[in-house]
Amino acid sequence: MKYPNGVKQQKTSDLHIQYGNRGMNLEKDLNDSNNYYIDMEKAFIYKKPTPIQITKVDYPSRSAAVIREAYFKEPSTTDYNGIYRGNYIDFEAKETNNKTSFPLNNINAHQIKHIENVYKANGICFLIVRFNFLNETYLLMAKDFLDFIKGNSRKSIPISYFKEYGHKIEEKYIPRLDYLKIIDKILDNK
Amino acid sequence: MKYPNGVKQQKTSDLHIQYGNRGMNLEKDLNDSNNYYIDMEKAFIYKKPTPIQITKVDYPSRSAAVIREAYFKEPSTTDYNGIYRGNYIDFEAKETNNKTSFPLNNINAHQIKHIENVYKANGICFLIVRFNFLNETYLLMAKDFLDFIKGNSRKSIPISYFKEYGHKIEEKYIPRLDYLKIIDKILDNK
Repeated sequence: MKYPNGVKQQKTSDLHIQYGNRGMNLEKDLNDSNNYYIDMEKAFIYKKPTPIQITKVDYPSRSAAVIREAYFKEPSTTDYNGIYRGNYIDFEAKETNNKTSFPLNNINAHQIKHIENVYKANGICFLIVRFNFLNETYLLMAKDFLDFIKGNSRKSIPISYFKEYGHKIEEKYIPRLDYLKIIDKILDNK
Repeated sequence: MKYPNGVKQQKTSDLHIQYGNRGMNLEKDLNDSNNYYIDMEKAFIYKKPTPIQITKVDYPSRSAAVIREAYFKEPSTTDYNGIYRGNYIDFEAKETNNKTSFPLNNINAHQIKHIENVYKANGICFLIVRFNFLNETYLLMAKDFLDFIKGNSRKSIPISYFKEYGHKIEEKYIPRLDYLKIIDKILDNK
């Protein structure tokens, strides 16, 4: 498509904002979905707090400590875990603006080791990956994720792999991302 | 006991420091024990990061963001969770300087609700409580904890309740607190 000078730039900028927000929404969508599951007493799955190294705290009064200096730490496990149908649930959620593949540098070596540990321990472990530009969200079980890493030297997982081995999560009004529907099928076929 | 003027104050201060350190050690002892379990590939149980509300972040360079203002948030779940023998494990750990009982204000209403949720969902849920002055550490299963709360209007759980319904955790060299030995017995009797 061709645009008069300036208009295209404007459009790109809008898209950037739009998709940027949408990317941030994966966490919000998952938290909303998890809160729905908790309210229904269906599952108890929470996002872990962001790991922080605190180096300076002020105590201006007895009741409120203020952290004045702290740094973000690399996570050593995944972001979400909890219990569903008596099973230990553990997953990492990521969004990407990449159109054709999911870059593996989104997940660090400690997290991959953790995913492998949980998988071997018979936990229900998976990734949830949203492709922002396609507005598609996939669930990929730990086994299929680990199979890809072991069988490939590629630095990203192509979307075709998610389409073949993953499970597309439908977006609904409530819960926003009903990913436990996919886990139900997997548990029922176990 | 009677002390000459000033000496008692000194003693109390020493004790405060000594037991303060020992209190801090429960978290360290549990983290060391959990790391041992992870190294042995026996269990994958982690302490969740401290929940923080970040209100100001500086970006002095592209590589290192510095948190300049943040506040501690009330936890809505327990501190530790993970997987052991295919089971979802979830617990809260607390130390107390109280000599005769464990004050219930150590555990907030959201956490009690969470413990109840996990218990009902068939997770393995418990408290680990260290009485610093006695140097004794007990594991109390969620059911016994919830039974106490429901059957009592007391604001603290007497140590006699821990002795009767709880399980004393022996301190060893490695792992420091082998609490999974108690969970083994409970799982074997299920």
